[in-house]
Amino acid sequence: MRAFTEERAWAKFHDPKSLILALVGEVGELAELFQWLPADEAVRRVAVEPLRTRVGEELADVLVYLVRLADVLDIDLASAARSKVRAAADRYPAEDHHGEAPQKG
Amino acid sequence: MRAFTEERAWAKFHDPKSLILALVGEVGELAELFQWLPADEAVRRVAVEPLRTRVGEELADVLVYLVRLADVLDIDLASAARSKVRAAADRYPAEDHHGEAPQKG
Amino acid sequence: MRAFTEERAWAKFHDPKSLILALVGEVGELAELFQWLPADEAVRRVAVEPLRTRVGEELADVLVYLVRLADVLDIDLASAARSKVRAAADRYPAEDHHGEAPQKG
Amino acid sequence: MRAFTEERAWAKFHDPKSLILALVGEVGELAELFQWLPADEAVRRVAVEPLRTRVGEELADVLVYLVRLADVLDIDLASAARSKVRAAADRYPAEDHHGEAPQKG
Repeated sequence: MRAFTEERAWAKFHDPKSLILALVGEVGELAELFQWLPADEAVRRVAVEPLRTRVGEELADVLVYLVRLADVLDIDLASAARSKVRAAADRYPAEDHHGEAPQKG
Repeated sequence: MRAFTEERAWAKFHDPKSLILALVGEVGELAELFQWLPADEAVRRVAVEPLRTRVGEELADVLVYLVRLADVLDIDLASAARSKVRAAADRYPAEDHHGEAPQKG
Repeated sequence: MRAFTEERAWAKFHDPKSLILALVGEVGELAELFQWLPADEAVRRVAVEPLRTRVGEELADVLVYLVRLADVLDIDLASAARSKVRAAADRYPAEDHHGEAPQKG
Repeated sequence: MRAFTEERAWAKFHDPKSLILALVGEVGELAELFQWLPADEAVRRVAVEPLRTRVGEELADVLVYLVRLADVLDIDLASAARSKVRAAADRYPAEDHHGEAPQKG
C-alpha cells in the first residue's frame, strides 16, 4: 500500500481523518451487501458467487485502508492485535464467560 | 480469534451481521479519537502517549473483528487484499493518476 | 445545535469531515447496543429499560450530528429527505417490488 | 417511511440490526463524498453542484433510515434529541468550555 501510494503521489491525501472516512466508506459497502439478508442465512448466501467475491473485495478494501492508516501512524498493527487478543483473554476468562455475550463497558 | 471464540462458546453470536455491527462499533471508537483533532496535526498528536496506545487498541479491535468475519465466511482475507491492490494498480496507472485524488465510481 | 455550538465557540471544530467522524462515532455506539442481540429479539429487548433509554440517546446523538452537518453545509435536510422518499417511491413501484428486498446498485 | 414500507411489504426486512446496517451503508456513502476533500475546503466544494445535491441525498438517506429505526423501536426521536441537547448543555456549561474540544468519556 505504501509503494502503491508513493508511486501515485497520493500520500498527501492520506491524513488519518481522511483515511478513516475512506475506511468508513468501505465498511458501508460491506454492510450494504449484508443488510437485507436474513441473519441465519447470511453465511450460506455469501458462500455462493458472485456475492462471495464481492464480499471478499469489500473485506479487502477495509483491510487495505486499515493497514495504510496504521502505516501513516507508524503503529504495528499485527503486534497491537496480538496484544488486544491476549488482553481480551485475560479480561474474559473462558470458564467465567462460557456462552454469554460480553457486555460493552 | 477462532480459538478465543471457541473456548468461550461465543461462535453462536458471530453471525456475519452481528460481526459487522461489532466492527462498526470499533470503527466508531477509532473515529471518536480523531474527530476533533485538526487534520494537519493528527499524526503528530497521535504520536504521543497515551493517545498512541489507545489508537493502536482501536485499530487492533477493527482488525480482530475483520479477521473473525473473514474466518466465519471462509474467505482468505490476505489473498483478497493482495488481489485488490493489484486490481487498483491496474485501474489507476501511476503515470495517469499522479497526485490526483481518485474519484469513487 | 447551532446556538449550543456558538455559545461554546465550538464552530471551529465543526468542519464537515470532523462532523462525519463524530456521526460515525455515534453510529458505532448505536451498533454496540445491538451487536450481540438475536436479530428476532432485538425489538423486544430494546422495549425494556434501561436499554430503551440508552438506545434513544444514541439515536438522538446520530440525529444531532446529522442536523449539525446539514446546517454547516446549508442543506435543508427535511426537504432533501422528502425528495428522497418520493424518488424511492418512483424507483420502486409498490406493485413491482412487493415483499422483495431491493438490490443496492 | 412507514407507509412507504408497508405498501411494499418490506417491514419484514426492517428488524433493527438490518436497519442499522442500512444506516451504516448510507453513512459510508456520505463519507466517500468527503474523504479526499481538504478539510478546510469541504464546505466550499460542497456548495457547488452536482456535489451539493449528491450530499443532500446521502444526508437524506441517513435520516430516512434513522427515522425508520426509531419508528420500529417506537422511540420518539425528536423528543430524545431535545433531551440530549439539554443534557449536553448541562454537562458542558458554556462558560467552562469556551473554545475547547470536549473529551469523549
